[in-house]
Amino acid sequence: MLDLTPTPTPVVIATMRDLKKKDKLIEAAGDTYGKTLMLLPLDVCSDESVKQCINNVKDRHIDILINNAGVGLLGPVESISIEEMKKVFETNFFGVVRMIKEVMPDMKKRRSGHIVVMSSVMGLQGVVFNDVYTASKFAMEGFCESMAVQLMKFNIRLSMIEPGPVHTEFETKMMEDVAKMEYPGVDADTVRYFKDVYLPSSIDIFDAMGQMPDDIAKCIKKVIESSSPRFRNLTNNLYTPIVALKYADETGGLSVNTFYNLLFNFGPLMHITMSILKCLTCSCLRRRTISPN
Amino acid sequence: MLDLTPTPTPVVIATMRDLKKKDKLIEAAGDTYGKTLMLLPLDVCSDESVKQCINNVKDRHIDILINNAGVGLLGPVESISIEEMKKVFETNFFGVVRMIKEVMPDMKKRRSGHIVVMSSVMGLQGVVFNDVYTASKFAMEGFCESMAVQLMKFNIRLSMIEPGPVHTEFETKMMEDVAKMEYPGVDADTVRYFKDVYLPSSIDIFDAMGQMPDDIAKCIKKVIESSSPRFRNLTNNLYTPIVALKYADETGGLSVNTFYNLLFNFGPLMHITMSILKCLTCSCLRRRTISPN
Repeated sequence: MLDLTPTPTPVVIATMRDLKKKDKLIEAAGDTYGKTLMLLPLDVCSDESVKQCINNVKDRHIDILINNAGVGLLGPVESISIEEMKKVFETNFFGVVRMIKEVMPDMKKRRSGHIVVMSSVMGLQGVVFNDVYTASKFAMEGFCESMAVQLMKFNIRLSMIEPGPVHTEFETKMMEDVAKMEYPGVDADTVRYFKDVYLPSSIDIFDAMGQMPDDIAKCIKKVIESSSPRFRNLTNNLYTPIVALKYADETGGLSVNTFYNLLFNFGPLMHITMSILKCLTCSCLRRRTISPN
Repeated sequence: MLDLTPTPTPVVIATMRDLKKKDKLIEAAGDTYGKTLMLLPLDVCSDESVKQCINNVKDRHIDILINNAGVGLLGPVESISIEEMKKVFETNFFGVVRMIKEVMPDMKKRRSGHIVVMSSVMGLQGVVFNDVYTASKFAMEGFCESMAVQLMKFNIRLSMIEPGPVHTEFETKMMEDVAKMEYPGVDADTVRYFKDVYLPSSIDIFDAMGQMPDDIAKCIKKVIESSSPRFRNLTNNLYTPIVALKYADETGGLSVNTFYNLLFNFGPLMHITMSILKCLTCSCLRRRTISPN
């Protein structure tokens, strides 16, 4: 027998904290806006806002939840208060946990669903002067790696997207801001390592291997369209050998020492090092990532 | 020329939140108490208490900082409020960050020091129904892995201790408590998986491979006496093959699928599985850990 019930058209619900800022999104959405693309206000830092947003979805039925909200923080920890650190965790970690807690029970009932979490290679591997951002992304990785086993029993998929450097206004502005900042409570050597060693290296890395936000969107599309998505999905072929250092040595020595050498011993050679890394990432490494193309 | 200045005797400063509970510690300390063992009050959840504690140390000079404070949390996330989760992070993550922020600047000035952090194998690998505890330990791993590179430049060592299951009153009480608890907001299947599948398996794992707190203390002693301590130090030979699954596959599939199979498919065979794991951990695996003996 044929099921003649019309399949409902899938709808994408985009969210933002302040709907007054919607113009750019609506322009990009074109014809889809109001048809297959809806807009709802959402602040992942508020229990109330999260509940209200999901209640505004028809039957609270969400097939795919994509957690994308995130904030950055960069600089010597001596200059960062515990309160500032907590703000990063509020969005990057507790924001995702709030969303999962709100959406997961309905997915469990339906025995179907896919949760996608925008993590970062900094959720897999520490990066100097990104201590707090890294910690918040690691927290998310640990939470999700624990949840994944349970969710599998309910036929719910959980996928982490692990971008490396991505060119965004957010990133550029943060780099410019910290370069200008003064760090009165921090010793001169640490400030020098941060401003004169780390920042130039970081800019080199962005230049050498930075992806565009569109590349990451294409990777997400691949993951949600896959019949058997992986748990972790690295998006950047060029960054993969760096992450591989972590996985090659569980004592952490290889990873920590290589970053140390790259930064403090081969700093002046960073341009060349980046080129070597490019050469090292031959096609055999590509299949270890999900590529945007 | 001989340096005839007497070397000051190293002093161990033990800390606890409430000095009224010191009797057991003083008994164990025996003759050393008041000579080479001192006691100071410390609540790692309070900026003020952390500052005051370190100010009470002579010249604020700390050679080795051992971060040991930690709290557990176990159960379906549906039953845990964001506020409860934040309490775990307050001790397990921000507590350590507060201590490092307070002690590190003096170590940087002296270009020497060793920071030891009590992490967990759950800081390296997710474990079902330990989602929040795991997240807090992952956060610590990410923070420290980032800090380690910078600290190396200042000749400061950073070592993570990664115990597996450890028999403590704390652990036994937590297991008993959760087994009795009701979980009104959680669906029946999830509660069943938690109480009837996870908890018995967890008790099996503790029985098969649990270490004693003394074993962990011996490992810490080895790490602080080592001339070149590793960054990560697994303490349990028997747990090492489980962690190896994580490092063998950066997509996370091997680790997540194995836990799933162990728990949901081979649950009734868990006793045997644990015995097999024991056999698998031949001496060749022992050198991948720091052993207490």
